[in-house]
Amino acid sequence: MGGDHAPQVVVEGAKLASERLSDAHFIFFGDKKKIEQLCIINKFCEDRFSIRHFPEAIGPHDKPSIALRQGKMSSMNQAIHAVASKEAHCVVSAGNTGVLMALTMFGLKRLETVSRPAILAMFPNAHSMMCMLDLGANIEADATNLCQFGVMGECFARAVLGIEKPKIGILNVGEEDTKGYDALRDAANILRNKELGLNFVGFIEGDDIGKGTVDVVVTDGFTGNIALKTMEGTVKLLTSILRDSFNKSWFFGSLAKLFLYPIMKRFKNTTDPRLYNGAVFLGLNGISLKSHGGTDSVGFANAVEVAFNLVKVDFINQVQAGLLKLNQVNKSNNTSV
Amino acid sequence: MGGDHAPQVVVEGAKLASERLSDAHFIFFGDKKKIEQLCIINKFCEDRFSIRHFPEAIGPHDKPSIALRQGKMSSMNQAIHAVASKEAHCVVSAGNTGVLMALTMFGLKRLETVSRPAILAMFPNAHSMMCMLDLGANIEADATNLCQFGVMGECFARAVLGIEKPKIGILNVGEEDTKGYDALRDAANILRNKELGLNFVGFIEGDDIGKGTVDVVVTDGFTGNIALKTMEGTVKLLTSILRDSFNKSWFFGSLAKLFLYPIMKRFKNTTDPRLYNGAVFLGLNGISLKSHGGTDSVGFANAVEVAFNLVKVDFINQVQAGLLKLNQVNKSNNTSV
Repeated sequence: MGGDHAPQVVVEGAKLASERLSDAHFIFFGDKKKIEQLCIINKFCEDRFSIRHFPEAIGPHDKPSIALRQGKMSSMNQAIHAVASKEAHCVVSAGNTGVLMALTMFGLKRLETVSRPAILAMFPNAHSMMCMLDLGANIEADATNLCQFGVMGECFARAVLGIEKPKIGILNVGEEDTKGYDALRDAANILRNKELGLNFVGFIEGDDIGKGTVDVVVTDGFTGNIALKTMEGTVKLLTSILRDSFNKSWFFGSLAKLFLYPIMKRFKNTTDPRLYNGAVFLGLNGISLKSHGGTDSVGFANAVEVAFNLVKVDFINQVQAGLLKLNQVNKSNNTSV
Repeated sequence: MGGDHAPQVVVEGAKLASERLSDAHFIFFGDKKKIEQLCIINKFCEDRFSIRHFPEAIGPHDKPSIALRQGKMSSMNQAIHAVASKEAHCVVSAGNTGVLMALTMFGLKRLETVSRPAILAMFPNAHSMMCMLDLGANIEADATNLCQFGVMGECFARAVLGIEKPKIGILNVGEEDTKGYDALRDAANILRNKELGLNFVGFIEGDDIGKGTVDVVVTDGFTGNIALKTMEGTVKLLTSILRDSFNKSWFFGSLAKLFLYPIMKRFKNTTDPRLYNGAVFLGLNGISLKSHGGTDSVGFANAVEVAFNLVKVDFINQVQAGLLKLNQVNKSNNTSV
């Protein structure tokens, strides 16, 4: 029931995803009547989905603290609990991000090996795609947190981006080992340890995000959130300046538009935000994915596919194994020192 | 002698600036012979400049720590000392940023009212132009530092951007008063104080930088550097994707380019980095400006003009007055509590 065009986009997106993922079964949580109607309109094959009637929905402006106390019967919370109770393998929602994060943390619980969960998302870069975490689950991150983000991000890039040995970098203000603050340098020293078998390239700078220097950008939630929003803002600013330049020279603008159409289409296809739709909450006992609230059915279907892939590769166990190794290497090094 | 095309770009840029700034006198520090020759080629009127022969130049890869010990006679250091000894009103260099910062801090000394100097630069936004600080002079910033950045940035926006009541915002992960960490919230509480007479709008997010929500973006040097580099990287990524889209559809691409030319020219004029050339070191007993090392004479002339304007409005005294007021308001509030 969450997002700007729910439940329509959600049902349409699930239908689209069901065509690509032949062994997926969908459980909708929400207003049964509305969902049923939409399933009929979209010719959603009856044995591919089921519906749980929870008409109470979380609103876009609801506060996480209040939702935690009063939102137990909400469709969002019930969907999360279906994952906790192993009825479902993963949950995808286009609803209120803050509430989804709070309910997911509370409902799915943190993995024992994880100190702090993180939010990860994917972005286009000069080569193809990369992922970045944390984007705001935590304001600060110590060296242990950053190392765990690195390991979780590596598992994600392998599972979803299909990169065998993902390159990992820590976001900093320079590439030299001496740059930044203690937590960054300590984390780099740990991730550099060959026993971990990671493809750690060291520190990267803000412009490396778009350049494609690495597949996994590791950072604290404050810096990650600022970098993410700054990217979004810069894209908007550039496209608006470009649009203004067109409109101001209307003669050339109109002619150029004619020829530009196929080019702009190609440009849009490459930068289509629907391709990268979905922020993942990592470090929990289950898979929870946040789709952008304003996405359409194509974007929602892509988010579903990401969640489905994570289930297929047994992502949680991969993360567990990676984090156990990290802890062991850390312990044995601390003992030897 | 600093920058990718020195001293040519520097002399040409100064000549350009001299045409706009009729009451400016230029003192060149560097290789006398080379500079003299360039001045003749550029028809630089003899009574508008003088030359101090200091052939020793700081290299682009020189370390600040070594330059501080061994670079005393370098043209860069001598130019800075001309400001310290009041022979010159301001210094502009396209040389090694780290060394320039170190030599400037050492040569010009910190203003007594300033806890930490900061680096400020200007950027285009949806309306016109804004400035942001700190971009990397410090890795961390406490509430006092952030407030001082706000006051210094306000003075700069008034002097250079010509905004009477510049809007100031602190970069954070959300607009709500509860967002971020203590230093941000404490700084916001101080800047909000009406006795200061600032146009403080509160917290802003990364996408507000491009939107033009404020004229002065206040942040710590780590976050500021990441945001700045992320913006640069995003611009490069988008333009490269756009270029690729053109090249891939060569038929439409070639035709569109014909009509696009005047539009792209307009686009480039608006986003021309030469317009925003120059990072300023704030909080020192003198005006020091870093021009981009790769800029051309137009960019260098713009940097000179910014420095010139700061001198004209008696910027250092404005900053002093603003910071004294900040300290007073802070003290009286602390006493009353």
